[in-house]
Amino acid sequence: MLDAESFDAGIDINATATEILKLARERKVTVTTAESCTGGLIAAALTRVAGASECFHEGYVTYSNEAKARLLGVPELTIVEYGAVSLQTAQAMAKGALKAVNADLSMSVTGIAGPNGGTEQKPVGMVCFGLGFREADGTPTSLASVHVFENNGRDYIREQSVRFALQWALKHLKAAP
Amino acid sequence: MLDAESFDAGIDINATATEILKLARERKVTVTTAESCTGGLIAAALTRVAGASECFHEGYVTYSNEAKARLLGVPELTIVEYGAVSLQTAQAMAKGALKAVNADLSMSVTGIAGPNGGTEQKPVGMVCFGLGFREADGTPTSLASVHVFENNGRDYIREQSVRFALQWALKHLKAAP
Repeated sequence: MLDAESFDAGIDINATATEILKLARERKVTVTTAESCTGGLIAAALTRVAGASECFHEGYVTYSNEAKARLLGVPELTIVEYGAVSLQTAQAMAKGALKAVNADLSMSVTGIAGPNGGTEQKPVGMVCFGLGFREADGTPTSLASVHVFENNGRDYIREQSVRFALQWALKHLKAAP
Repeated sequence: MLDAESFDAGIDINATATEILKLARERKVTVTTAESCTGGLIAAALTRVAGASECFHEGYVTYSNEAKARLLGVPELTIVEYGAVSLQTAQAMAKGALKAVNADLSMSVTGIAGPNGGTEQKPVGMVCFGLGFREADGTPTSLASVHVFENNGRDYIREQSVRFALQWALKHLKAAP
């Protein structure tokens, strides 16, 4: 699990994406993405690495709630009950992406990049992350984590979200047997 | 149509994305993306603009041929006969994205960003673009164009491809009645 305490805000995005793909290649693991507020930046970071196609076959930018439900199978009730920006939705997005793509590892992001859309309970900068992976027997599963980034603007929040998602995926790959 | 002669290699990506979304909002047009070699960069450019969610609901990164077929409905025969990097595939991707999302405007990109994968007939830097839109009666249709960018590296080719796709979409929106 990656959380606010263990997050390193200064990692190099390209180096982290490169390391993820190197480990994924070695282990014959396929990777996918389900992005809301990062809007394609994680997929772009992965595909920036030459040869990414070996492990990355497709990714989703699910900006609307309807897309989260239709493409990723996020239950509408989850979105209604907990909101699009919630641990529950992030977790469902990650698991849904895993299933939709038949992949081995997935990263999901849903958050409030601003400048509008923040509330007292869910301020601008609050971003929920999901990590989908497979149990030893192949069953798809997922975890979720949340981070409230400083409200240093939309670009900053999106970029830090990319760092968080990639860092978590790499940590998971490194810890996996 | 945008072609090699009319392409302006120096446009500002963020300003162009902003203008596309402004026009799309005014005309109640929804926009989507189907990206291969740009790998999410066009979706990222659009969603960088605050309020993009009004007109951009979802986008696809279809890196593998299988994803192009399954998610966008590109006929396998098209890919086999003409190749994944071809006007025919780009055109089918744009039309397929339009239908999959039920959107009004789509941009597709499939190309060879390198450093590997180039051939004499399809060199590194060759990128095919599709633009999907609706006829006056609502029928989805699409056009394709090709550009061979200078082989100044993977990042350069991807970034210029974003410029081309956005520029074409904006030109189309400006010309539309």
